[in-house]
Amino acid sequence: MKEGKLLIFVKSLATLLEMHPSEELIFSNGRKLLESLIATDDWLPEAFCKPHPDYYQQYLLYADPLDRFSVVSFVWGPGQKTPLHNHTVWGMVGQLRGQERSANYYQQADGSYTAEESFVFKPGQVATVSPKTHDIHVVENDLSDQTSISIHVYGGNIGRIERAVFDPITGIEKLFISGYANTATPNLWNTAGNPAS
Amino acid sequence: MKEGKLLIFVKSLATLLEMHPSEELIFSNGRKLLESLIATDDWLPEAFCKPHPDYYQQYLLYADPLDRFSVVSFVWGPGQKTPLHNHTVWGMVGQLRGQERSANYYQQADGSYTAEESFVFKPGQVATVSPKTHDIHVVENDLSDQTSISIHVYGGNIGRIERAVFDPITGIEKLFISGYANTATPNLWNTAGNPAS
Ligand SMILES: [Fe+3]
Ligand SMILES: [Fe+3]
Ligand SMILES: [Mg+2]
Repeated sequence: MKEGKLLIFVKSLATLLEMHPSEELIFSNGRKLLESLIATDDWLPEAFCKPHPDYYQQYLLYADPLDRFSVVSFVWGPGQKTPLHNHTVWGMVGQLRGQERSANYYQQADGSYTAEESFVFKPGQVATVSPKTHDIHVVENDLSDQTSISIHVYGGNIGRIERAVFDPITGIEKLFISGYANTATPNLWNTAGNPAS
Repeated sequence: MKEGKLLIFVKSLATLLEMHPSEELIFSNGRKLLESLIATDDWLPEAFCKPHPDYYQQYLLYADPLDRFSVVSFVWGPGQKTPLHNHTVWGMVGQLRGQERSANYYQQADGSYTAEESFVFKPGQVATVSPKTHDIHVVENDLSDQTSISIHVYGGNIGRIERAVFDPITGIEKLFISGYANTATPNLWNTAGNPAS
């Protein structure tokens, strides 16, 4: 039985994390695994590609029951954008389809947040976030006429973590838990009928 | 956020298995966890309760990507029955709904297999299988007029393991891989719309 690309990624990442690697090793070896996964856009089942007319969507693809990691499909319709937010755990964002812009913000002396750097991601490219260095950003679909999709990997169950959104002007933070849009996740061991299965 | 019963079970079992327990400990502590899960029949989503008119169904609920364990819903229409088969890994079968009969077979001097014991399981009861002692059985729906459902837990990914069915008369074995009927598994972290979520 041929193993699907998402299963191969989840297995490889689980194996890497079993060694309790440093964040540096996750961002080198784990990044290569994610780059492999997003090298071709032929494996994500249709159900996890659907944009919502009003909000960007977060579809859980796999989460470890002991909260060691999670893999999520983020789907952005034209013009959709996150609030300024943090993650509290390491994260890697791999562009699968379309194009996204991510701006990293840093708190200033007066408490406000300013974007000090901004990057555009094309399919195949990977961004990182880390509470140790750059954890607060705004991500948006950089295309006005099509859906963008990125595959996010975090060192925790991102949809269940209590984290924060920030008012960039006042710096006031508000706690939130993002949740997931989907009640069904892919069966990694039965991809019949899925693309590239 | 309230955790669903299936999530609590999967987390507790993963935590137990992290300690690399003996089979004896799995069959005592793990069994208690399974008994808790099946103590009430109000949590299994409809999609994983559906009988097939011709065959018993195996719906994957959760599998560990490193093949440490799997949790599967087995659904039997009236009159449905497995062939004589083995598992090759430890297993626990918890009756959730209806009633099943399980007969343990042992190979005789002439190579044939004979049922030496047979048990009926009612909701809340747990059976075990083990390659060390009793791994070869036939399970059937013991009710002629309703669906029976049991929740199976194995020390491997049961739908992916190469194992065997046996001709009880000749003892001839044939390898098989059972697979899964479902391409989508429950999102353990979003049970909205599911019973008892
Ligand atoms: Fe983010
Ligand atoms: Fe069996
Ligand atoms: Mg371990």
